[in-house]
Amino acid sequence: MSTCGMFITFEGVDGAGKTTQVNRLAEYWRAQGREVVTTREPGGTELGITIRKLLLGHDDADEPIAPRTEALLFAADRAQHVAQIVRPALRRGAIVISDRYFDSSIAYQAGGRELGSQEVRELSMWATGGLVPMRTYLLDIDPAESHKRMIAPEDRMESTGDDFQQRTRRAFLAMAAQEPDRFLVVDATASEDEVAEQILSDNLMLSAFTGVAEVHESVETEPAR
Amino acid sequence: MSTCGMFITFEGVDGAGKTTQVNRLAEYWRAQGREVVTTREPGGTELGITIRKLLLGHDDADEPIAPRTEALLFAADRAQHVAQIVRPALRRGAIVISDRYFDSSIAYQAGGRELGSQEVRELSMWATGGLVPMRTYLLDIDPAESHKRMIAPEDRMESTGDDFQQRTRRAFLAMAAQEPDRFLVVDATASEDEVAEQILSDNLMLSAFTGVAEVHESVETEPAR
Repeated sequence: MSTCGMFITFEGVDGAGKTTQVNRLAEYWRAQGREVVTTREPGGTELGITIRKLLLGHDDADEPIAPRTEALLFAADRAQHVAQIVRPALRRGAIVISDRYFDSSIAYQAGGRELGSQEVRELSMWATGGLVPMRTYLLDIDPAESHKRMIAPEDRMESTGDDFQQRTRRAFLAMAAQEPDRFLVVDATASEDEVAEQILSDNLMLSAFTGVAEVHESVETEPAR
Repeated sequence: MSTCGMFITFEGVDGAGKTTQVNRLAEYWRAQGREVVTTREPGGTELGITIRKLLLGHDDADEPIAPRTEALLFAADRAQHVAQIVRPALRRGAIVISDRYFDSSIAYQAGGRELGSQEVRELSMWATGGLVPMRTYLLDIDPAESHKRMIAPEDRMESTGDDFQQRTRRAFLAMAAQEPDRFLVVDATASEDEVAEQILSDNLMLSAFTGVAEVHESVETEPAR
């Protein structure tokens, strides 16, 4: 087994097709014999599922969740997710693919609401001990378009209005522009196959660069230690 | 009504008698006709109760809560507690008395576990928007002594061992030494009445200083605006 783990994240507004693309990329690598861990935020751990229910199911009528509370709950979910799932898997040499990670917090909480991007980012950095993905695929789509694709857009995060979703999209794009080495912006209005192909071709390049693609060869040619 | 709110916190290891003393101080001020809000951390809000259950009831066997997750959950509870209970009450001019606040996080998480005091403090400052109590009563007692007083010391925070409780006590005392203007250290091995008297006498001085004691007079003598 290689010890070269690879941490990949998918970002974008709801309905951009993240889940589908996470699964397609995972299928590819599994077919190559790699250990793949697909996960999500919020809710990648049992504790995270509880936190997710709290965040999505909370009835705002009596007791609205304060913006800082929300940011801290997402950060708590993330801290647990990284400590329990992501880091151990990377140590085993797995490919970890996460449906959302800290960019979502920055885009939704800071871009969309009252907190500053910098403070939300610092909170995530503290929560994860500074774990940054090797590549982030931003599935970009006009929220008006993605909304049409969604079957049940009724949960809390998704019902905060078009304006909010538009601001979130712009926040994602601004972040991608700031970190062009980490982000790949993919046009999510293209067909599922086209999107998958673009992501896979980038991912192969990335894995070649990090040595992941050569894992089988190196296992065969190198002596055991 | 006065608009001079007063924010008081009680700290100390489990079994030091905080709950009893919170109630005694509250009774005094209520008898004086003041609005008093008694509250607690974790769990001062409905959301906080859920977080508290999560923290105290979590079964560590499968999925231990990571230290940063724990710190962030306490901070989330605190953010909500301050936004929903403490700040609105202070704005109304109430006396808010909290059973535990951020010093507990610093003492338990930083003093007792793996995180740095400074980072845990900064997290709390961010969570609360910088709300520091006017006075903190540290009920100091040897944990070996307080343990004997407790009827059901079976929850998670309380079962982490004597060594942990001793470190926590030392952390509280070190914090009190660093902020002598805010902390009053009270010997919690004294009788309930003696402890209550010492706290009340300090609290009266404090309230005189902040104008709280004169609330009735000023209501009677000043014209309505």
